[in-house]
Amino acid sequence: MRIGLDMMGGDFAPQEAVNGVKLFLATAEANAHLVLIGDEQAVAPLLSAAQIDPSAYTIIHASEVIGMHEHPTKALKEKQQSSIAIGFHLLKNGKIDAFISAGNTGAMMVGTFYSIKAIDGVQRPTISTPLPKEDGSYGVLLDVGINADCKPENLVQFAILGSLYAKHILQREDPKVALLNIGEEPGKGNLLAQATYPLLKEHPQLNFVGNVEGRDLFHTQADVVVCEGFTGNVVLKLAESFHDIAVKRNIKDDYFKRFDFESYGGTPVLGVSHPVIIGHGISKGEAFKNMIILSQQMIESKLMDRIKESFANGK
Amino acid sequence: MRIGLDMMGGDFAPQEAVNGVKLFLATAEANAHLVLIGDEQAVAPLLSAAQIDPSAYTIIHASEVIGMHEHPTKALKEKQQSSIAIGFHLLKNGKIDAFISAGNTGAMMVGTFYSIKAIDGVQRPTISTPLPKEDGSYGVLLDVGINADCKPENLVQFAILGSLYAKHILQREDPKVALLNIGEEPGKGNLLAQATYPLLKEHPQLNFVGNVEGRDLFHTQADVVVCEGFTGNVVLKLAESFHDIAVKRNIKDDYFKRFDFESYGGTPVLGVSHPVIIGHGISKGEAFKNMIILSQQMIESKLMDRIKESFANGK
Repeated sequence: MRIGLDMMGGDFAPQEAVNGVKLFLATAEANAHLVLIGDEQAVAPLLSAAQIDPSAYTIIHASEVIGMHEHPTKALKEKQQSSIAIGFHLLKNGKIDAFISAGNTGAMMVGTFYSIKAIDGVQRPTISTPLPKEDGSYGVLLDVGINADCKPENLVQFAILGSLYAKHILQREDPKVALLNIGEEPGKGNLLAQATYPLLKEHPQLNFVGNVEGRDLFHTQADVVVCEGFTGNVVLKLAESFHDIAVKRNIKDDYFKRFDFESYGGTPVLGVSHPVIIGHGISKGEAFKNMIILSQQMIESKLMDRIKESFANGK
Repeated sequence: MRIGLDMMGGDFAPQEAVNGVKLFLATAEANAHLVLIGDEQAVAPLLSAAQIDPSAYTIIHASEVIGMHEHPTKALKEKQQSSIAIGFHLLKNGKIDAFISAGNTGAMMVGTFYSIKAIDGVQRPTISTPLPKEDGSYGVLLDVGINADCKPENLVQFAILGSLYAKHILQREDPKVALLNIGEEPGKGNLLAQATYPLLKEHPQLNFVGNVEGRDLFHTQADVVVCEGFTGNVVLKLAESFHDIAVKRNIKDDYFKRFDFESYGGTPVLGVSHPVIIGHGISKGEAFKNMIILSQQMIESKLMDRIKESFANGK
């Protein structure tokens, strides 16, 4: 398998992307050829300096970079030689099996939606965040920001996508799905939650366990929690801020540490035809490593095929 | 002034309510006669045992109690002699100037909306939560749960109510108001946030500072943050859960401590004609004390009159 990595994306590129490549190749599970996309003159010396085995990667030169604050659609259109544009071109044409970037998030979204396609039957691809559980495991919360207004059917699809992710990537047998809500009882919540509850409950592909509240997100009653992207994004950023506060206040705690983006890297876009992983701008080596591992897991587990089958059957 | 307190409400009533009365009366600012509503036979001996000055309170006997899990409307209707029903009766008839209970939240809501009235012009009364800021001050987030579906106009009203609360209770001059959103730029967010932004910006009574994200809630850029009650409730409960986790993990930190409900007690219902404070079921003495102090501040600052004036002018 070939995994494409944007070497120019993120606040600490390309050095931290190189560090991530090195860390990945040192892991026992490393099983991919890496296609490193970026300014060859900047990247090649760093790879050499890091003494990375040249047979493990191929460099694809990209003469342009899309800046973190550029307008996504405009930049993607005008900068055809940017690392992100080239990455999606390679992905679309089967030259790579997954694409990772910690660069301009908007450009990654636009590239995902316009270069590759949503899987048949998926109305709204989605992004998620890991939920670190108190017992050491992880759950997944989705959507966390690209679908700010949702219909009940969208939340049901997020539940299916999240379940497949939990099963094939997080290794959960029959993942428990919950609806994020403001009360435990059925019938609670806003109009969206009230309308979504029965759809989740009746869905044959889902192991629906009911509502969970804000206080339950890190407990183990659910592996997959669904909500619209507005609430999900607020939750994600609030959880990040608690981690930041803990760091600032010099609180050293293993559990709070797990809210650090370094520990997982980025979010896959679920519901599209190929693995795309969007990294946090502040990604460092460990985050890049984890994103490459996650891509590899998504390819090895044939997650995209599982999603295709599920949505084909669900029609 | 006379402040009514439900002695039977909450998981640790009536003993912790008695403790709260004692703590309140020991504070330098205590300036209210307390009307203690509950089972006289249960309450009187505890007050005596606590050696509380009998001239500081009057007991109003209530022969019934509404349980924490009873159906609110049904219980209020059938239990006319319950402490909550009597409390609202006294408040409606001017026998007390504020009413506090840590009992059945739903019954407190129903009592508030049906016994006393919304202030003219207020479409939706609201509840809030304090936001502990990193600099030691407090802001306020609203709505946090009674208005799960909102229109833009509702959020504007929450902003006005929150501003007046911040000004008169939190002593903020010209409180800064922000919209909770999923991006900083104008135009970001779901349909509700997009439609609300210009209304907040143009409102002559508001010092609107723009959008804030989930990560900004505990920073100082805004004193008042508005959102619909679904997101607000999820935020509140998530923040509570971080506190719980910190306690469970034996993290001792002054900042995280401020997410403890003990430090503030309960939430006032804003936008109704008299001060009503709804306490957390797990309230202990310190929380009861703080709720009594807050009632006294709401009365002394004439907050309800300020709200009436504001909504009369705003028409």
